[in-house]
Amino acid sequence: MTRPRCAAFLAMSLDGFIARPDGRVDWLDAYEAPPEDYAAFFASVDTVLIGRDTYDLVVTFPEWPYGAKRVAVLTHRPPAPRHGEAFVAGEPARVLACLAAAGSRSVYVDGGAVVSQYLAAGVLDELTVTVVPLVLGAGRRLFQGALPERRFSLVASHAHPSGLVRITYRPT
Amino acid sequence: MTRPRCAAFLAMSLDGFIARPDGRVDWLDAYEAPPEDYAAFFASVDTVLIGRDTYDLVVTFPEWPYGAKRVAVLTHRPPAPRHGEAFVAGEPARVLACLAAAGSRSVYVDGGAVVSQYLAAGVLDELTVTVVPLVLGAGRRLFQGALPERRFSLVASHAHPSGLVRITYRPT
Repeated sequence: MTRPRCAAFLAMSLDGFIARPDGRVDWLDAYEAPPEDYAAFFASVDTVLIGRDTYDLVVTFPEWPYGAKRVAVLTHRPPAPRHGEAFVAGEPARVLACLAAAGSRSVYVDGGAVVSQYLAAGVLDELTVTVVPLVLGAGRRLFQGALPERRFSLVASHAHPSGLVRITYRPT
Repeated sequence: MTRPRCAAFLAMSLDGFIARPDGRVDWLDAYEAPPEDYAAFFASVDTVLIGRDTYDLVVTFPEWPYGAKRVAVLTHRPPAPRHGEAFVAGEPARVLACLAAAGSRSVYVDGGAVVSQYLAAGVLDELTVTVVPLVLGAGRRLFQGALPERRFSLVASHAHPSGLVRITYRPT
């Protein structure tokens, strides 16, 4: 069975953070990103794969942000599903094989820990980073842990009037 | 006396590093950056301000890379000058006052530690980051220490065919 395509789409401060130390992303509110960019990306995936921290945050949102997409949460302590989400665990190859068996063809990998894990495993097929024009000073990093050196090709780069620079990469 | 303008121009890996843990920048060799970009920046400054680590590296180069520019090295252990460079120490405001008194109007601040210190002190007037399309995994960071949150305006952004994305910021 073909491994599903894996892609990530994250906003990162100039100094490499995706959230404050406590997980808040309030610093993003000041920047107007073109919603059609994210909408086009989101429309291109059939499955969302997130870590437990991301899940615990989004499950508190007034609205479930993933609509009717298949959602898989990486965790060893599965709670009761509230939006039809599945709880999975294991190495990327095993998780992706399970998702493929369930019909996934294109997976949106989200959260710093999960993106870093999938990057390290060599299964991240596309990475879009929106560089936010601020230095945050502290927080949770996009790139975590002992990552192997890995080169990318630039697919696209676009500067928005707000100062955001969105860059899309694929592994070389 | 007017404080000299301070500007930085650095290449940074996607995961925030400017050098390997041992200071090597061999990973940059694979990328062809348009030399006119750096040449225009270098021509715009009359003084180069570097840290001791950067100095100890460039002084081993076959050619002194700063030509006839005034060079100041931040250090508390001044060696004998070899290219007319001056050795200075102290807080950014004090160092910049000394440089102004010596005639400096536009200072090229280089090296992660010095750039971070001048950024934290609020005296960095322009920052050009060339984002290199690779994850290095470990090394010396551009943004170091406990930096205060600081917002920037985007001045320019340009993607090169090699995959480098050069972004210029000024403090908001």
